[in-house]
Amino acid sequence: MALALEEARAAAARGEVPVGAVVTDAAGTPLSRAGNEVEARRDPSAHAEILALRAAAGRLGRKWLADGTLWVTLEPCPMCAQAASLFRVRRVVFGAYDPKGGGVEHGARVFAAPSCHHAPEVVGGVRETEAGGLLRAFFAERR
Amino acid sequence: MALALEEARAAAARGEVPVGAVVTDAAGTPLSRAGNEVEARRDPSAHAEILALRAAAGRLGRKWLADGTLWVTLEPCPMCAQAASLFRVRRVVFGAYDPKGGGVEHGARVFAAPSCHHAPEVVGGVRETEAGGLLRAFFAERR
Repeated sequence: MALALEEARAAAARGEVPVGAVVTDAAGTPLSRAGNEVEARRDPSAHAEILALRAAAGRLGRKWLADGTLWVTLEPCPMCAQAASLFRVRRVVFGAYDPKGGGVEHGARVFAAPSCHHAPEVVGGVRETEAGGLLRAFFAERR
Repeated sequence: MALALEEARAAAARGEVPVGAVVTDAAGTPLSRAGNEVEARRDPSAHAEILALRAAAGRLGRKWLADGTLWVTLEPCPMCAQAASLFRVRRVVFGAYDPKGGGVEHGARVFAAPSCHHAPEVVGGVRETEAGGLLRAFFAERR
């Protein structure tokens, strides 16, 4: 999660909403890391999670990250939650909860739908004060 | 939808699950078209909708497709439904309903969640027999 927080800080420095993500393999070794790139790419789907998942699969040369863990500083939105399911990660660990936009513990609760074919294990609230603090500081500055 | 069906047929010919998508502007002019590329890219997030949304925004050089319509031959999964919301398309028109994997009229029902900030208008079942027939034929051949 320290690496994901670094990515979130780097994203903030680029003017992006500060969210960072890392994918690790079964041994806990990072396969990929990414920060939010929505503004730089002008692509609303360029969330940190999607970029990290795609990069990890690309690095392994295979579609599924069956032993992998997705670490992300903010509760994934429904797009990223479903992507984690499609890439078949074993576990999703996130920092701050996101009652307004989250899709794991809030809103669409993607993994809880009966039609979710692969529901990763979920651990929320890991270093949430730091992760949430970055977001609050970022938005406070822009108000 | 005819163009999206063409893309779905082309996807099947490449060994991809036959789903096709098109994004049109306010005047109904196609901005982008794409078929599923999950196998070719070894990327489970390379659904036709994501590829078409990203290409349309890229072509316009802006983040949002506020007057756009996403046409897709199959009910979008939760990832693609949320992506349509994030790209702020005005309307989603889909072909076949997908009770097993859909995230619009089934499962996570992404647009119906109170935390969905932008819910496009939805029209389902457009040329659904053709769209569903392509999928059934594809999977029947592989069984």
